This record gives sequence, structure tokens and C-alpha cells, in this order.
Amino acid sequence: MSRTMFDPIYKEIFPFWDKISETDKDYICQNSYTITYPKDTNIHDGNECSGVIFVRSGSLRLSIMSDEGKDITLYRLHQRDMCMLSASCVLQTITFDVFINAEEDSECYVISGPAFAAVSERNPSIKIFALETAVSRFSDVMWVMQQILFMSLDKRLAIFLSDESARTGSNTITLTHGQIAKYIGSAREAVSRMLKYFTNEKIVEVSRGGIKILDKKRLRKLAL
Amino acid sequence: MSRTMFDPIYKEIFPFWDKISETDKDYICQNSYTITYPKDTNIHDGNECSGVIFVRSGSLRLSIMSDEGKDITLYRLHQRDMCMLSASCVLQTITFDVFINAEEDSECYVISGPAFAAVSERNPSIKIFALETAVSRFSDVMWVMQQILFMSLDKRLAIFLSDESARTGSNTITLTHGQIAKYIGSAREAVSRMLKYFTNEKIVEVSRGGIKILDKKRLRKLAL
Repeated sequence: MSRTMFDPIYKEIFPFWDKISETDKDYICQNSYTITYPKDTNIHDGNECSGVIFVRSGSLRLSIMSDEGKDITLYRLHQRDMCMLSASCVLQTITFDVFINAEEDSECYVISGPAFAAVSERNPSIKIFALETAVSRFSDVMWVMQQILFMSLDKRLAIFLSDESARTGSNTITLTHGQIAKYIGSAREAVSRMLKYFTNEKIVEVSRGGIKILDKKRLRKLAL
Repeated sequence: MSRTMFDPIYKEIFPFWDKISETDKDYICQNSYTITYPKDTNIHDGNECSGVIFVRSGSLRLSIMSDEGKDITLYRLHQRDMCMLSASCVLQTITFDVFINAEEDSECYVISGPAFAAVSERNPSIKIFALETAVSRFSDVMWVMQQILFMSLDKRLAIFLSDESARTGSNTITLTHGQIAKYIGSAREAVSRMLKYFTNEKIVEVSRGGIKILDKKRLRKLAL
């Protein structure tokens, strides 16, 4: 039953699927399940092993958090993305904790961490895939780090609004200032101030419904 | 000749050495060389492939840099450490650039990137080793990121001075305020201000010769 259900999915997702034994395929499928996380669920917080998570629909947000509760978004996972950082028991060289939160209702496939680890010990191709997934996230995180540490707020905000508008296919961004501040690693007050500046410049219009982009051209120029 | 020279070194350094063919061992050794970088040499700056670097003696500093030349230390490599980020041609999922600088006279072994990549394509154990090295640096970088983004300057400075004193086995840290600022991702002025505060508190004594730790206990307390 679980094999019939997961086999076609994993065949499509995993580059290693055709290289591993039938027994290992069965074992992975038997240790897989589907789960729906309602919006705002905390899926993972810290170093326990929540398993390898695939996003079937929705969106997950990965962040790091300070003792005082300040958090910074590392990246978001959308449809067809896979999370290795939630399965810290699989990659022993990962020694930091991340927090994962469903920012929309999200349907996911999860493979139990110990099962994935056991099979990857027997199959170098799986281990390589898992490590490469983690290393590509390393690149994402370095990008965020450079953004936060080096880039001025107007540029960061302009990039975020442009990207978000492109992603959702809408000129209106329906996020609060606090949410945007989290995404770009800034403070709510600073974001509100910059949005006021953008409003004065007729680049955006801020209302209760969200932030409407009025001048795409200038926003794109700011983002350069 | 190169085989006789590098074989005993690689046997000790590489967990995969005994698992690969004699041909591959020869190939790696033939594409290895030793090099001495004088202090303050820029070894690597950006995305070219400088090869896989091992530190035999001395110390290398890895950093990221903004367009304006502001730089932030990611980590330092000491004796027996290995750098994969200098060999971006080996790990294609690494898409960011780092800068590497010799902060002391440093003797290194270097394996050419394309040679390492070719042999790792044939040997999963090498690929896994290279990826695991990169992922463990990912953990280092996350630590730095949390330090810079979340931690107050007094704590960061106290940790740095304690670590540096433990590393060198001396109570005197012979670095300039500017150098320390780079290591902890802060501004020189901020470090000087905090050192003045530490001086007033009789925790350290600042002179031309460097920063002398007077009260280890309090420094350690600050670092908690």
C-alpha cells in the first residue's frame, strides 16, 4: 500500500531511486507518511529529528532564533522542495538548530530520519544526494547573510517586494510589516519607515489590504 | 617522486585513501603541490577554482566581502584543516564566493580542483568526504551568523578574547582593534569602545604590545 502510493512520487523526486534495491525502496516507503500542517504550525524547533520533509503544496519557512525570540528567515521551501535540516540525525556534520514553520496550509511527505539514515548508509548515491541538498541550502544562507550584513534596507525591501510580487503573480503584497521585517532580517519599525518613504515616492501604496506596487520600474531600479 | 612525498600525508588526512585505486592515488599525488603563502597574501578571491587546500602550518582566514569592501570572517583554518570552498569547481552546489587570506606565513598542500573533481566522480567515498567537509563549515558559518545577528558585542568580544588566549596559550592578544573587529563582525570603533569599557572594569589592559587579560574569571563570565 505505502509502496504503491510513494513509489511514483519518489521515482520523480529522487535521482537515486532507480539505483537502490527493491528492499530499500520498500523500507523507505514503509517509513513515509503524508501530513498536512495547518498555517502557522511549528513543525520543527531545534535538534530533534523530524525526518526528511518534502513540500507537496504550501510553503514552509526556515529560520534561526535568538534566546530573546528574535528570528531571521534563512529560506522558504515551496512545492517540490526538500528539507534536510529537519533531519539532523541524517547529517551528523550539521550541528545547528533551525525552526520550521508552515506559513500556509502545507501538505508534506515525510520520511522518518532513522529510516532515511539507515538506507543512506548502504547507498552512497543517497548520501551524496542528501549532502548536496544541504550544501545548496548553504549557498542560500550565504546569500541571506550577505543581504542582511551588507545591503542597505531600501535595496533589501525593494528586492523582497519585487520577488514576492513575481512569485504570487500579484501587484499587491498581503503581508504585514512585521512579517516582511522577519523575511528580510530587519525591524518592523524600520520596514514601516521605509515603506512610508516608498509611499511618498509613489513607488507603493499602503492600505489595510496590503502593499500595492505602483511603480514597478523604480522598484526594480532600487533592487539593482 | 610526488607519490612518495604525498602518499604518507594523504594516508593520514583522508579517510578514503585506502579505498581508492592506485591509479587514482597516483593521479591525485601528481596533481598536488606544496606552497608557502607569506603573511597577508590573498590566496583566493571569488569563484575561480584554486584547488583543495590543506593547511600544514600557519593560518588562513575565510571571509565574505561587500561591494564596498566591508568584510566578515566566516572562520579560520589552522593546521590539518582543509578548505573545500576554494575549490568551487568540485562542489557545484556551492554558488557563493569567499575570500581567503593568509593571516600568518602559511605552508599548504594544494590538490588541483579539476583533478580532485575527476577522481571524486569515480569514487563516491571522496565525494561524500568533500561534501561532509563543506557541510561542517556550513555549521561554522551558522554559528558566526548567530553571533553577529543575535549576540551583544560584550559577549562576542569576551568569547573572542578567551578563545584567542586559549588558542595561543598566552594572556596577551597581539591583534589590532581593527583585526578583532573583523573577526567578530563588528566595527573597529565599537571594539575600541568595548575594550575601553573592559579596561575600566580591570578585565583587560590595553597597550601597544596588545591586549592583556587581567581577569580571566570575569571574562569567562561575560562569555556565558
